[in-house]
Amino acid sequence: MTGQLRAAVIGAGYWGPNLARNFRTSPDWDLVAVCDVDRDRAVRVVGPRSTVDVMVSTHELLARDDVDAVAIATPARTHAPIALAALDAGKHVLVEKPVADDGGLARSMVARAAEVDRVLMVDHTFCYTPAVLKIRELIADGALGDIHFVDSVRINLGLVQADVDVFWDLAPHDLSILDFILPGGLRPTGVAAQGADPLGAGQSCVGYLSLPLPGGAIAHVHVNWLSPTKIRQMVVGGSKRTLVWDDLSPQQRLTVYDRGVDLGGATGLATGPEKTAANVSYRLGDAWAPALPEKEALGAMVAEFAASIREGRAPRTDGAAGLRVLDVLEASSRSLADGGRLVDAYPGVALETVA
Amino acid sequence: MTGQLRAAVIGAGYWGPNLARNFRTSPDWDLVAVCDVDRDRAVRVVGPRSTVDVMVSTHELLARDDVDAVAIATPARTHAPIALAALDAGKHVLVEKPVADDGGLARSMVARAAEVDRVLMVDHTFCYTPAVLKIRELIADGALGDIHFVDSVRINLGLVQADVDVFWDLAPHDLSILDFILPGGLRPTGVAAQGADPLGAGQSCVGYLSLPLPGGAIAHVHVNWLSPTKIRQMVVGGSKRTLVWDDLSPQQRLTVYDRGVDLGGATGLATGPEKTAANVSYRLGDAWAPALPEKEALGAMVAEFAASIREGRAPRTDGAAGLRVLDVLEASSRSLADGGRLVDAYPGVALETVA
Amino acid sequence: MTGQLRAAVIGAGYWGPNLARNFRTSPDWDLVAVCDVDRDRAVRVVGPRSTVDVMVSTHELLARDDVDAVAIATPARTHAPIALAALDAGKHVLVEKPVADDGGLARSMVARAAEVDRVLMVDHTFCYTPAVLKIRELIADGALGDIHFVDSVRINLGLVQADVDVFWDLAPHDLSILDFILPGGLRPTGVAAQGADPLGAGQSCVGYLSLPLPGGAIAHVHVNWLSPTKIRQMVVGGSKRTLVWDDLSPQQRLTVYDRGVDLGGATGLATGPEKTAANVSYRLGDAWAPALPEKEALGAMVAEFAASIREGRAPRTDGAAGLRVLDVLEASSRSLADGGRLVDAYPGVALETVA
Amino acid sequence: MTGQLRAAVIGAGYWGPNLARNFRTSPDWDLVAVCDVDRDRAVRVVGPRSTVDVMVSTHELLARDDVDAVAIATPARTHAPIALAALDAGKHVLVEKPVADDGGLARSMVARAAEVDRVLMVDHTFCYTPAVLKIRELIADGALGDIHFVDSVRINLGLVQADVDVFWDLAPHDLSILDFILPGGLRPTGVAAQGADPLGAGQSCVGYLSLPLPGGAIAHVHVNWLSPTKIRQMVVGGSKRTLVWDDLSPQQRLTVYDRGVDLGGATGLATGPEKTAANVSYRLGDAWAPALPEKEALGAMVAEFAASIREGRAPRTDGAAGLRVLDVLEASSRSLADGGRLVDAYPGVALETVA
Repeated sequence: MTGQLRAAVIGAGYWGPNLARNFRTSPDWDLVAVCDVDRDRAVRVVGPRSTVDVMVSTHELLARDDVDAVAIATPARTHAPIALAALDAGKHVLVEKPVADDGGLARSMVARAAEVDRVLMVDHTFCYTPAVLKIRELIADGALGDIHFVDSVRINLGLVQADVDVFWDLAPHDLSILDFILPGGLRPTGVAAQGADPLGAGQSCVGYLSLPLPGGAIAHVHVNWLSPTKIRQMVVGGSKRTLVWDDLSPQQRLTVYDRGVDLGGATGLATGPEKTAANVSYRLGDAWAPALPEKEALGAMVAEFAASIREGRAPRTDGAAGLRVLDVLEASSRSLADGGRLVDAYPGVALETVA
Repeated sequence: MTGQLRAAVIGAGYWGPNLARNFRTSPDWDLVAVCDVDRDRAVRVVGPRSTVDVMVSTHELLARDDVDAVAIATPARTHAPIALAALDAGKHVLVEKPVADDGGLARSMVARAAEVDRVLMVDHTFCYTPAVLKIRELIADGALGDIHFVDSVRINLGLVQADVDVFWDLAPHDLSILDFILPGGLRPTGVAAQGADPLGAGQSCVGYLSLPLPGGAIAHVHVNWLSPTKIRQMVVGGSKRTLVWDDLSPQQRLTVYDRGVDLGGATGLATGPEKTAANVSYRLGDAWAPALPEKEALGAMVAEFAASIREGRAPRTDGAAGLRVLDVLEASSRSLADGGRLVDAYPGVALETVA
Repeated sequence: MTGQLRAAVIGAGYWGPNLARNFRTSPDWDLVAVCDVDRDRAVRVVGPRSTVDVMVSTHELLARDDVDAVAIATPARTHAPIALAALDAGKHVLVEKPVADDGGLARSMVARAAEVDRVLMVDHTFCYTPAVLKIRELIADGALGDIHFVDSVRINLGLVQADVDVFWDLAPHDLSILDFILPGGLRPTGVAAQGADPLGAGQSCVGYLSLPLPGGAIAHVHVNWLSPTKIRQMVVGGSKRTLVWDDLSPQQRLTVYDRGVDLGGATGLATGPEKTAANVSYRLGDAWAPALPEKEALGAMVAEFAASIREGRAPRTDGAAGLRVLDVLEASSRSLADGGRLVDAYPGVALETVA
Repeated sequence: MTGQLRAAVIGAGYWGPNLARNFRTSPDWDLVAVCDVDRDRAVRVVGPRSTVDVMVSTHELLARDDVDAVAIATPARTHAPIALAALDAGKHVLVEKPVADDGGLARSMVARAAEVDRVLMVDHTFCYTPAVLKIRELIADGALGDIHFVDSVRINLGLVQADVDVFWDLAPHDLSILDFILPGGLRPTGVAAQGADPLGAGQSCVGYLSLPLPGGAIAHVHVNWLSPTKIRQMVVGGSKRTLVWDDLSPQQRLTVYDRGVDLGGATGLATGPEKTAANVSYRLGDAWAPALPEKEALGAMVAEFAASIREGRAPRTDGAAGLRVLDVLEASSRSLADGGRLVDAYPGVALETVA
């Protein structure tokens, strides 16, 4: 395939304009149309003195021959029907997170894309930031050693929403990042969720998610709509080094610390509680802040969408990745309903079918 | 009682030297002796050209007539026997946190102090910092409104210990602060704990504690020995305002934000999920950083110990406060052993007997 | 005048694209054309699927009837000829800072605009940021009291340039802000500049500017192209309160401190050096961070340009403001050439003719 | 010499207690006495249950046989007479900064110490902090390359004083650090000072000091008593790397940036202004934060005092270092009195006699 691919954006609400802007300025793409049931919103996204089409009917849009791919930025409950229709119409599909609002529907989407041989990609935007790409690289290269813990905090004054709780609104970001950086993807041995609704909003506005990982490690996610300050911080602790990602730091987003605790195993004689303290040693080494390029994540994301189409391969954040994130979200809802009990993330689903 | 009170410090390990220094420089106290089974450690605490006595026998120390009070800074498992002996010898007692390593023993200590009419105080040091005193005052004055959530993070590269896990080592700080600032003290409706031991140290090195509070609120504590960076931050979210305490900020420890989310209740007509989003409003007001005096907490703590003895009253952080903290610690151990299930904090104990 | 005003941007280099984007999305403006001698650069600014004209000839652009105003974002030495031609063609003119590279030419521009009754505005962008607007308001309302000192730091790894030194490149920002916030505008009693060229670049890469102000106050500007970290900070010290503006802080850009030093004058008896220390008192009050709206400065700037045209009035940052900034820049060059001696900012120019 | 050296501290005001505490806890020293004309102040420094002597007469103190060295922490104008008397009495002398309030007297002190073969050390405390020791090491090892600029900021709400201006109060810290870290010590080619007294305090409360260095480099010092926030930051820019020292950062005091601007010189053809821009290149590499030990500077300082006495050598911050700092202070006063003109730092003094 040569020349630019032709894209349309469906949904001109909160996120659609960002997608439209990036398709528009990408050398890989020609933005052909923006579609929204609210015509005025779509007009505002297209802007003045533009020949990009404005449409109100998804049906008509999908019938066009001059559109290779659609990006779906509509409410989560509409993802599956629109995506399935688009795949059936032969379009490649990029869909906002979460991939769907139901695991069964998401599995249908993944299956349909495979059947029609079209790309199904999930817009896990953070996976295309220079910081997350660097974190993935550092972990893959062994710079951190074995992962001991991941602590992720994503809190700010957020829009309390009518139809999703804070877990479904914010945690997909953290979970998609975990899925992207952990070797083998996100595969917790269980999910435990604690939430609170102090406002009486009808759903959790404050949430804590514990995800035990194989080998005694743990991931934990704190999401909160009620915090007056915005914090986006992730600590990834490893056996060799530990990394802190402060996404809002203007000067130093990523810091790798050569500090940690080691349990020596040499002597082999001591037993019982005394063993531990005797064999502990500390490293208090230097810190290191890798330089990160200044690149907009959405630009890299639409480039990856184009490349996966051109090369006939799965994109980095494919439907299966979206499914792993969705499974954990659904498990967190089950745990929440059961007093925070640790539940299986993938009940009755063999993991290989997820990947 | 006129003149200075006469104190002795028992235990010259990690914390004892700090207590000794503060008794020494306090106008309320005369430091008479420092006692440790390791004579050299005690000598180092006393320092050169000093006439403060060095002792190795607690028994001999408690037999002295010229000692009004003892401060116990020994391992937690020895707190109860030493404190009970000291109370029996007629001494007032200050004991390090946690008050004991067992709830039954701690109850004995509280009961004995009442019987012999001596002060039993727990060194919840943070409760005497200017920041925590201010937070307590702001909450008591209604500046924050109803408390919606408290999120506390206390992480750093800590000493992995042989006999206590990270909950018992670090969480007493957070719990004692919660007990001090929450109206009515720390009375969670349940306790859920998640821990991880990625090092294979034999106990949790990373811990998360969820404490649902009456009225839909929640407190959460994150303690961690494996973090290369030190964070001590507490966010207290209220219905009117929200407070952030960053204990390590050199410039601005306490910030009160006039920001938040309100659920309007005026219309009364809407029902179901739509209600929520329709009635949400946001305040994005100014922030305010109250000036805090520069005072060492331990100085204020030993002053309160003296004042409570002189005035024959309970100190601010008395044995009952220590007991409430201990009960939550014991509950967290039970939850941890049961896969993080939400457990009662005070099983079989009527709350009024705790207070 | 009704409907949108019609604008063209001249210069598609570093800053032109930002201007074009803001004219394009402003409800006040219709962006008609982008003009650059390098046609490809202009094409890139206009983007795909657009009907905005691309032009290469300023001459042809100025001859068009359907252009009400031009924004000039070309190198400083070309500002005057283009602006004068545009004014002669009846266009309103917005020009990048500095208004010109020569005071005489700038005076001609101001005079010509008055003759032809067209608006001449200088793009002092920072004066339209929410932070600077708030600072101006606080000073005007007397919240800071009399201004005692202003310390401005603007350092980062900057583009070492062939034709301007660091003073001419960066200090116009600081000087335009000073002109905007100080009651009566920027009117230093002298200018002293110290610079350094440690690279041997042929001009100063590090610069310090001292501007004594009437009444014993001082403003100071530190500009630096060689700093690996980016700092944009201004401290405005007043007799009542002091303000710190940290433009890169993600959380708290503006803080007003109710702290300071007061010289009491009550006793009236003491004389000589002893007087001072005896009568000094300190305020250590609270800090306060006013909420700032999230608005893009350039959007507010193009709105002000439109409003000044419609209302037939001088814009907030008019040619005279640009001239006051330019006069200080020229004085700093004279001081630099004379070993940092304090020189007059407005030699031979009565101040009233500047305003 | 074996065993501990015997010290006395003269002056129990602001700084004396810190010196006394460090002599007391140092294994090298035995603190014999504290001397102050105000007996109560000295008693408070010694504290209760202590056998350290309290004295009010310097004369009697200097007559004692059991004192090897004195530390002088009295007002600057008394440094010279006390130090000269102490040297004449055969004592080694440590003196607070500035070494004296007059260059001639300081030269006498240096000369007398040489004559009587006793150590004269200046308490340039910052030179013994782990951060400054590391900076000196990095520069000496060539890690930064040639030094291009040093920018030092030391501002806070300070005690406006009756007898010294802000330069004499705060700049000795910056100048002593510059003297310690710059290869060859502090030897500016000139000194230019700008000050302001907006309070009418009778002397500068805000000060800026420019110190051109050989080779086109510059050092600049900003000292300020009127700032509500405390900043202690030094940027050391080099041809290879640049270092930022933020002394108040709780997490990362020292950062070394592998970023900078290079002027290529290879082609050799271009001339004139075009040359510069064409040959500029940028490095945007990683940052690195060396681990620093947690050590109290004063402890290291009194250890160096002892070591220099025992080894019969000049201490790291000897009288000559104090003299170089004093010469720049005196030059800054001359520049200030002359409208900020660049003046010689060492008029009529051959530099070799200073070193």
